Amino acid sequence: MPLLVAGSVAFDTVHTPVAWRERVLGGAAVYFSYAASFFTTVKLVGVVGEDWPDTYTDMLQRQGIDTSGLHVVEGGETFHWKGKYLPNMNDRETLEVHLNVFGDFQPRLPEAYREAPFLFLANGSPRLQSSVLEQTTGPKLVVADTMDLWIREEHDALMALLGRIDGLVLNDAEARLLTEEENLVKAGHAVRALGPRFVVIKKGEHGAMFFGEDEIYVMPAYPTERVVDPTGAGDSFAGGMMGYLAEQREVTPVTLKRALAYGVVAASFTVEDFSLDRLRQIDRSALEERMAAYEQMLRF
Amino acid sequence: MPLLVAGSVAFDTVHTPVAWRERVLGGAAVYFSYAASFFTTVKLVGVVGEDWPDTYTDMLQRQGIDTSGLHVVEGGETFHWKGKYLPNMNDRETLEVHLNVFGDFQPRLPEAYREAPFLFLANGSPRLQSSVLEQTTGPKLVVADTMDLWIREEHDALMALLGRIDGLVLNDAEARLLTEEENLVKAGHAVRALGPRFVVIKKGEHGAMFFGEDEIYVMPAYPTERVVDPTGAGDSFAGGMMGYLAEQREVTPVTLKRALAYGVVAASFTVEDFSLDRLRQIDRSALEERMAAYEQMLRF
Repeated sequence: MPLLVAGSVAFDTVHTPVAWRERVLGGAAVYFSYAASFFTTVKLVGVVGEDWPDTYTDMLQRQGIDTSGLHVVEGGETFHWKGKYLPNMNDRETLEVHLNVFGDFQPRLPEAYREAPFLFLANGSPRLQSSVLEQTTGPKLVVADTMDLWIREEHDALMALLGRIDGLVLNDAEARLLTEEENLVKAGHAVRALGPRFVVIKKGEHGAMFFGEDEIYVMPAYPTERVVDPTGAGDSFAGGMMGYLAEQREVTPVTLKRALAYGVVAASFTVEDFSLDRLRQIDRSALEERMAAYEQMLRF
Repeated sequence: MPLLVAGSVAFDTVHTPVAWRERVLGGAAVYFSYAASFFTTVKLVGVVGEDWPDTYTDMLQRQGIDTSGLHVVEGGETFHWKGKYLPNMNDRETLEVHLNVFGDFQPRLPEAYREAPFLFLANGSPRLQSSVLEQTTGPKLVVADTMDLWIREEHDALMALLGRIDGLVLNDAEARLLTEEENLVKAGHAVRALGPRFVVIKKGEHGAMFFGEDEIYVMPAYPTERVVDPTGAGDSFAGGMMGYLAEQREVTPVTLKRALAYGVVAASFTVEDFSLDRLRQIDRSALEERMAAYEQMLRF
């Protein structure tokens, strides 16, 4: 089933302790779309400037991603993020953020997008996320991501959004900030109490935790020694997760759990190179192979 | 089969963000012994001072722990550790260390201890660990723990020990320090290259990683919202692991993996209260129940 995603499309300048890349393809909605495209048709909503190369659009389209919702602003510049990873390759520092055309993005969904049954609101202001949600015609599953900035500065809008979504995906620091609970199990329950039926807390190199009505569980990250650039890992995780759910067409405790595992596996590829470079080398069978290894790893 | 453990027996003064306890029962060998005692007969080697209450010895004995190797130094004082946990309840600061009688402990193994087929060298100086190993008659499995202090200050003795043991258990920071590798997968392989046939890296609230000849895997911690005091979690983990192996009598990839899972489960109880308080409330069936839940959690 079609999966709609709205969020940032960006150029990233990334410094790691051993290498760096300037203005490479990035953005939450891009990582998400690409990871999800292994499973289902993705409809991308985003905005870029005149500096956006058509070759990127072509590349996304070849992957089966519908880019008719990717708005190009004449005379505008694409969102540019610059960051630096600490030696542990898990924590990072944002050096520069140039929102550019993403700053006053007012998304307009193409007609063909509105009935998509699966919706992911990638990290963006809760107002922007709500505006996208309002243009859809009752999706079967709505999941959102958020970040510290919105928790701090658009708290009321975020709270309103939390009452209207099925699932929230956020990282450990964000869950702690949102709930003022240090213990992640308590934090997960507390986020659920704010509205979402389920919550996924991403823990970077330590995997993810799931909180649903009847169960909580933890999934470790797939262990890899080739961690080149963690940028986009969380978005790829969400893409793998939502892509699999859209493919399965139904959201049950069983499909949700497998979906998280596919998310872990998708993220484990993303970190193995800069930008989408590693994801672009793989296909569904590579995902399945690692998924089988991951499943085996957790059996005893 | 009997399991021999040598290491610290201590009084701990523990401060957490919400509570504190003064001079409660602790020490690596104590946590280890108690956790292992659910599975097998444990023979404890350690040293205490005159301030050691007989009631503690009685309590350990009632749990089936052989304390004939627990030496009481007349006029001496028991090892006392004082520490403080940060709000995340994972990182801690050591405030005071009074080694006391443990400082110049020269262990002498009772005759009945020497043939124990399973041996755990809990955290202690590599010289002390080697001295214990030399008094045994060729155990089937020898596993050791270590810490930053020995990595820094007794490097050569530690390297010599690593060539004589089957397995090493250490935490993530120690693995990084020992190998100068930030990536834990690389660090795990690098520790194995120093000698041990297998390596377990403990990651606190994030579980543990295993490195063997043919496989590596990650096991998440069992999620609990009742984290009262993490002291002794790593030693309880090792106790559950070694206890199960001694019970199974054989060390295969299959028993090792289940052993790690039992270690995770044992540790998850330890953190739920100060000292041995939570472990003292449970029995084997409580461990089995949580083990089943843990196994279920990791299936999808």
